[in-house]
Parts: sequence; structure tokens; C-alpha cells
Amino acid sequence: MTKTNPGNFFEDFRVGQRIRHATPRTLTAGDAALYTALTGSRFAVQSSDAFAQAVGYERAPLDDLLVFHTVFGKTVPDISLNAVANLGYADCVFGAPVWPGDSLSARSEVIGLRENANGKTGIVWVRTVGENQRGARVLGYVRWVMVRKRNAGAPPPEPAVPDLPGAVAAGRLAAPAAFDPAGWDDELSGETWRWGDYAPGEKIDHADGMTIEEAEHATATRLYQNTAKVHFNQHTEGEGRFGRRLVYGGHVMSVARALSFNGLANGFRIAAINGGRHVNPVFAGDTIYAWSEVVERLELPGNAALGGLRLRTMAAKDTPCAGFPDRDGDGRYPESVVLDLDYTVLIPR
Amino acid sequence: MTKTNPGNFFEDFRVGQRIRHATPRTLTAGDAALYTALTGSRFAVQSSDAFAQAVGYERAPLDDLLVFHTVFGKTVPDISLNAVANLGYADCVFGAPVWPGDSLSARSEVIGLRENANGKTGIVWVRTVGENQRGARVLGYVRWVMVRKRNAGAPPPEPAVPDLPGAVAAGRLAAPAAFDPAGWDDELSGETWRWGDYAPGEKIDHADGMTIEEAEHATATRLYQNTAKVHFNQHTEGEGRFGRRLVYGGHVMSVARALSFNGLANGFRIAAINGGRHVNPVFAGDTIYAWSEVVERLELPGNAALGGLRLRTMAAKDTPCAGFPDRDGDGRYPESVVLDLDYTVLIPR
Amino acid sequence: MTKTNPGNFFEDFRVGQRIRHATPRTLTAGDAALYTALTGSRFAVQSSDAFAQAVGYERAPLDDLLVFHTVFGKTVPDISLNAVANLGYADCVFGAPVWPGDSLSARSEVIGLRENANGKTGIVWVRTVGENQRGARVLGYVRWVMVRKRNAGAPPPEPAVPDLPGAVAAGRLAAPAAFDPAGWDDELSGETWRWGDYAPGEKIDHADGMTIEEAEHATATRLYQNTAKVHFNQHTEGEGRFGRRLVYGGHVMSVARALSFNGLANGFRIAAINGGRHVNPVFAGDTIYAWSEVVERLELPGNAALGGLRLRTMAAKDTPCAGFPDRDGDGRYPESVVLDLDYTVLIPR
Repeated sequence: MTKTNPGNFFEDFRVGQRIRHATPRTLTAGDAALYTALTGSRFAVQSSDAFAQAVGYERAPLDDLLVFHTVFGKTVPDISLNAVANLGYADCVFGAPVWPGDSLSARSEVIGLRENANGKTGIVWVRTVGENQRGARVLGYVRWVMVRKRNAGAPPPEPAVPDLPGAVAAGRLAAPAAFDPAGWDDELSGETWRWGDYAPGEKIDHADGMTIEEAEHATATRLYQNTAKVHFNQHTEGEGRFGRRLVYGGHVMSVARALSFNGLANGFRIAAINGGRHVNPVFAGDTIYAWSEVVERLELPGNAALGGLRLRTMAAKDTPCAGFPDRDGDGRYPESVVLDLDYTVLIPR
Repeated sequence: MTKTNPGNFFEDFRVGQRIRHATPRTLTAGDAALYTALTGSRFAVQSSDAFAQAVGYERAPLDDLLVFHTVFGKTVPDISLNAVANLGYADCVFGAPVWPGDSLSARSEVIGLRENANGKTGIVWVRTVGENQRGARVLGYVRWVMVRKRNAGAPPPEPAVPDLPGAVAAGRLAAPAAFDPAGWDDELSGETWRWGDYAPGEKIDHADGMTIEEAEHATATRLYQNTAKVHFNQHTEGEGRFGRRLVYGGHVMSVARALSFNGLANGFRIAAINGGRHVNPVFAGDTIYAWSEVVERLELPGNAALGGLRLRTMAAKDTPCAGFPDRDGDGRYPESVVLDLDYTVLIPR
Repeated sequence: MTKTNPGNFFEDFRVGQRIRHATPRTLTAGDAALYTALTGSRFAVQSSDAFAQAVGYERAPLDDLLVFHTVFGKTVPDISLNAVANLGYADCVFGAPVWPGDSLSARSEVIGLRENANGKTGIVWVRTVGENQRGARVLGYVRWVMVRKRNAGAPPPEPAVPDLPGAVAAGRLAAPAAFDPAGWDDELSGETWRWGDYAPGEKIDHADGMTIEEAEHATATRLYQNTAKVHFNQHTEGEGRFGRRLVYGGHVMSVARALSFNGLANGFRIAAINGGRHVNPVFAGDTIYAWSEVVERLELPGNAALGGLRLRTMAAKDTPCAGFPDRDGDGRYPESVVLDLDYTVLIPR
């Protein structure tokens, strides 16, 4: 009997199954520095203790996507080691801020299963929760992945497809309790645009481009202790579908978010990810550009200081986004588009 | 109207204009570790709390060039996003030491303007100050850049060229107040050479070479939140003048400084940069070598423990420096030379 | 006279010589984050303060190999700058745990010398000790290297070859004093296998592969302030034996150790390295696989909570290890095998 983890196959999952994931992880100022260095992020609240304290935080919190990737990474050995494709995210709500020194752990519940018609794969829906060392929830989200069956002949489970919200409602967004808008300094944050300055339907070209190197995405993905083979093993991937390693889609999310600073500098916190799709693969050497569409302005109940801004941020490779590349009338994405992320940020009013 | 920052053009600047730069930045032990890992620096004061405490510091301060690059990086979106060339530095004085946990912010004043004869570009001189969260100055310097005009037809400003010192005088160098020479251990610092062992005119070949990878310079430059496009975007730079991304000149300074340990190990603090020129471009794959010439020994007023050593450190690519490659009689640099940095370090007497 | 360190040659060493190495180094959470990001390590004790505290540590200690590489790196400028080959390690015992913030220093004693028959090189044995700022030993080990002579005509020293143990005895392994087995959580650590579940002779294929990039090994090796030229200088190495830079053997050890998580997740601490050989060179682009053989189970005197597991971990490049590639009957390694490491880990019983 082998001691090596072969990962779970489709028939290993059952609805209601609960999994506590290895490896718990303390995030530190070291992770924050690497996150900045690998993504180029420069939002003021996450970059400066002094700025964060001026608006009511005890210190600079860690970047929301660093938290997301860390929790996500934990789930890979249990959920997606035998995944064919990462199909989507939904209902992702960020909770307590994460400070350097916090220890995160992750657990998941299987909430849906459906075998595919080919009998070789199935779709697994899991709801994952990340918690800090005090048991406070820092993140919860649903993702669904297509997972291989171990044996094509295994009987299919009773199909169960969860009902997921199209977007996280304003009342579920966690706003920082002590946020003090008087301390917000637009010169230091980088832009003067506030909640009321963005209009639904508005499109913003983030202008800048960032080329991704092999060492960069692999280093970032190891930082998250994500073990998906496709990102790390050139020996096998060189023989595979693309002939090369695939960039972790979360790294592309982070690069696009960092690029979005240019036009959305005051959108300092990701409060929710309503949905997201990795539309086309990204490889080392690709240059990522991004643009955003303002989907909706959300009032936060009882909060006059902050508003929510629901955005679609699209990332494209080797294609400047002044022309806002998007789906066509049939819902098909151009080959250049790699990410379509629907999320909600908090921004001072 | 776009929300994206297009950067300032030459006609947007006026003498006396003051700019507070985004994004303030807390530097941490994470940044220090990355600085070591990306540059190879190994000066004992910055590497070891125990060594730093033995000579009177409360702990290991952050590397002076990490501080320089961080402050410099802040200025890019406001000063040099439309720069054609970074022409020089002068009058750079380092002040209060920066500790892990300090939050730095940067502000600049335009102190000179002169349109070029071609009517398409002009030179902008700015004096930049970096401060910590207590308002103490950690750094001040002047740099000048050639910036594009938005409209060639815009009228030129009244020329104003600042008068800059050729070197920072000894009386302006900030020496650590509590420095205790009795605690300096030459075995741990790496060399026995002290202030009196260096003679003006002496040349030192630092011997070692360091090859720069694309992922390394880009990661370092993102760490400093420097957004100059030429360092990051292969998609556009591939079509540009060099066909590739340009290594941030500050990274070359840091690599040369790290190499200078071999022969200048006791020159533990950069107190001033008197002037500096990036003489030729550096690209990924280039191997950097360095040599230094001792320009002058400076007595620090009232300080018997430390002296100043004014140095010219020259970096060359793919060319060992045993032959001390330098300007010829007409002041022309060989193509191999990439950096000519005139600066002053503190060294125990 | 040059101020540049040319390194010691064979005739510069004498038995009994003691060397205190530059540069002392404070290891921090920044180094820990980089170590995770560059190697992919994910052992729970080193990853999470909360997990470490649950089993009796005050917080997560730094990875043992990060400590090893840091101490080793210090010795390079004095011991192996003119080395032709790093021949082996023995009698390596890890002592006090190292916490973020600890300042390490290193010292060595020459314990053996033997000139080679060719008269051009000789073998130097050194015993190196790493200590923290309180003078507690964190590591001691012997290594031997082949070093060039400065002058082939110099007279050979009296041969002195130290007697080294084949393995570190169980009584010399340092087990954490306050280790509490009740706090060990197999779901969080990643596997259920304990000391008693491993049998001598058992072979474990760690399954995963990790490709090493030039920027990754160079960044890791600079983090350790290791200055061996072969890892960093493409300009000279391009003309050398392999036509390219050599990956630091210690980085390969770290990658193999990280891969060994898959099958040895509970082997949380390296207590000793009994011996180790870098069998073939590794270059950027190589994909590292690993497998382990259980050599022996060791009872720790008076310790019912923890046991020792003596392992041989073999790393191979571009060769999956399901077939357990190993020496042939004549003791010759296949070209794919790059590392044969004999070490002892602690694991809960």
C-alpha cells in the first residue's frame, strides 16, 4: 500500500462530506512582501500601516487575494488533484481582516455532485471556509471543478446541483467596523475617485501591462502551498496538452487586480467574489492587461462611509484593453481574454 | 473622461509645484529578506540584529538602497511615467535609519525646468523627500528626467536650472548617534580594512559577477512599487527600441553595491549619493561586475569613530573589472560600463 | 595589495585552525516566506504558529534546511571559494530550534587535510557549528571539499583524515522538550502515518515533480548569502565545464525534502543528516522528483512521544521515481539521480 496521496477521484466524494485541509498556515509580513513583489499590488490600506491606522485599522491588513489563494491552496490536495478543469467560483464572501501573524486553516463541505454524460468525469461543488486561529471566518466560497473518475464503471451518484446566488447581496458584505473616512487621503491613496464617481456601465482601461515569468507564477503558487501539478512540472506538462506549465488562474486574478489600481485605486477591499471564470489559459511570457466595467453601485446598510462597487474585471493577454475586449453576442470570448471576474470592492463614499 | 492616470507631461510641471506621492509603504522584515535574496547583499549591520546591537543600533536597519528604491518608486507615477530618460541624481542625503515596521511616504518639489531645443521634450528637476511615520526625514535627493511634452506646440516655460552641489559635504552626512566602535568585529563583518586603510586613487576590483534574470529584476522593481512600463511589459517593449525590457537602473545599483562587499565590507552605510549615471542599458541575462575607486576620505566633524569614504563604483556587464573599465580621455564610456555611481559610505576608523 | 578576498587555497588550511565566519544573519518571517515560496515546503509545524503551539512549541520554528543553508552559506567565502567539488557531509546534528528573529553565526574548525596524488588539489575536512544569539548551538556538521592549491609546488601537509560516524546515534538527536503528542492533528498535518507505520526497507515514491528555474535557485542561494560563483555567474559558467550555472546542491535537498511531504508529512523535523552526496549536477529547467527508503526506526531514549526515522531520500531529474532509481550493484548511480541524502527525521509515535 502506498503512503503517497493520490488525491480524491469523483467517486470518492459524497454530498455532505466534510474535509479539514492540511496545511494550516501563518501568514506574515514576509508573505505580504512577496505578494507585493510578485503581483505589483499597491493599494494604500494594504501597503502602509500608517495609512491603515489613519482610516481606523489597527495596522495594514493582508491583501484579500493573498488570503483567498492561501485558503484555496489548502483545498487542492483534497479537492482538485485529479481535476480536469476549475469551472467556477461563486458566493465568495470575505470576513474578518487577516493580520500578519494570523494562522489560517481551511475546511470544505461537498455540496453538489453530478456525473458527466461521458461517464469519465463528474462535477464536484464544494463550499470552503477559511478561519483564523480564533475561529473567526475570514473567507467562505463555493467552487466547482471537473474531476476524473477512478473507474469509469463506478455507478453515478444521485445528481445534486446547489442553488447559488448570482451575486453576494449588499447586506452580506463585511465592512470594517471602525472605518474612519476622515482619515482617507486621496493623494496617498493615489486617486480622487470615490463611490459616487463611478457609474454603472462605465468602462475603465487600466492601461498598464505586466509580463509573467515562469519563476514568478511558480513562486507565487508555491507561496500559497498550492500543489496542482500543472503549474510546476515542466517534465510532464511538456508532454501535455499545451506543452508547458499553466499559470495558476489565481495569479492572473492578482495581477489583474494589481493593474486595476490604475482607475480603481480607492477600491481598497475585495468584499466579495460573485463569480469568476478562467476563460483561456495563461503561460509564462504572456503580458496581462486588464479593464473593468462598473456593474452596480451598492449601498451598504447603515454605512454612510463606504459603498460597494460591483465590477467585472477582464484580463487579456498580449492585448491592450483600450478596446475593452469582451464576449460577443453569442457569449463567446475572444482568445485574448483570459479572465472574467465579477466581484465587489469597498470604496469610500 | 478616463479615470486612468496618464502621467504628467512636461507642460504639467511648474517650478515650485509640490506633489505628495501615493502609495505610502511600510517596510518589513519581509522586504529585507527579499532585498537580500534578489541582490545578494551581505553587509553585517543590515544582516544581523546581534551585530547591529553590538555597535549601538537598536536592531538591524534596512538597507539604504532598499529605502532609496522605495521612495524613488513612489515618485514614478507622478514624475517619470512619460519620461524618455532618467538623466541623473545629485545631493542625495540619507537621514534617520529605517527599521522594519517603519512606514515611508514621499513628496517632491519641482525645482527646475528647461525645454529641449527639439520642442518635444524637456528636463524636469525634482527634489524628493522620504519621511517615516514620525515625520523624520530618511532620505532627500534631487533627480532630473527628460519628459515628453503632450503637445509639441505648448509654449516653453521660463528656463530654471538648479544649482546642485558636486558632492554632499561631510558636515551633512548623518552618522548613527550611538555608534560604538568597540563592538565592531572584523571577523564577523568580513574584512579588516578600516577608513585609514583606503587611499584616494586606490582602485578595487570586486571580482565577483552576478547574472540578472528577468524574474529577478521585475520582482525587485515591483517590490519597490515602481511602475515604469519599460521594466514590466514585454508585449510593448518587444516592439520598442531594445526589443526587450530594461532592467531598473536601481537594481543595477543594488547589485553593484552588493558586489562591492568584496573589498568594502566595512563600508556599512551609504550616507550620501553625490551623483549617478546609468551609462548603458542592462537587460536580463547580463552579468554585472563592479569595481570601485576611492575618491576621497572624509573626516566627520566631531566623530572619531567613523569616517566617510567617497567612492566611485562602476558596474560593467559581461566584462570582468580587473582592468577597471572607465571613461576615455573624451569622457566616453565603453559600451560595457552600465553605471557610474559617486557616493559616500560610512566606515569605522 | 588587493583588498578583494581571493578565498583560501589548500595550503592555507592547517588542522586545528579555527575560523569565525562573516556575515552573521538574523532569520525572520521574511526568510520563512521565501523558503516556502522557493521550495514548496508545507510541513505543518513550520507553516503554522497555531499548529506548532498545539504540539508544545512557542511558535512555528524555521525550517531546518533553511538553518542549514544559512550556516553553510557563511562558510563558503572561507572554505570553498576555491573548491573544485563539495564531496560530502557527515555527523550533522540539529540542536536548538531557530525562531524568527534569531541571529545566527557560524564558525568552523579544520579537522582533516589530505593532498591529492595529482599535487594540484587537496581535501579539507571542516567541522562547522552554527549558534544563535544566546550562544546555543543550532547545528553542527562536518563537510569535506576538494580545494585547489595556489602553488602546485607547495609541500603537502601531514595527512589527517577524521574518523566520522556513519550515522548520528539516537541518543544525540535533539527532540523538542515540550512536545505534546495529544496536540498533533493528522488532518492538519496532512497524513495519518506515524512512526510505527513505517518499516525498514519500505520505499515511498513522492510522486510530484518540481521544475527549477534559474531565478529560483539563484534567489534561494542569495537568500543564504552563499557566494559560490558557479551558481550566479553565467558569463564565466557559460565558458565552463557545463556551459551554464550549477544549481546549489542545498536547493535540490530542499526541493526533495519538500516533495517528500507526500508520504512523509508527519516527519516534521530533521534531527540529523548522516551523510549526503550530490551525485550529478542539476541545472535550471530540470524537474526534480524524489523517493525515499526507510533505513531504520530509532527509539529516542526516554521519549515515548517521538521516534526517529532514518531515511535515504533520492532525488532524480526528469525521471519519475515510481521505479526507485538507485545505485547499481557496483555502486554507480544512474545519470538521472542527483542526490542521495541519508538523514533522520522526528515523527510522532
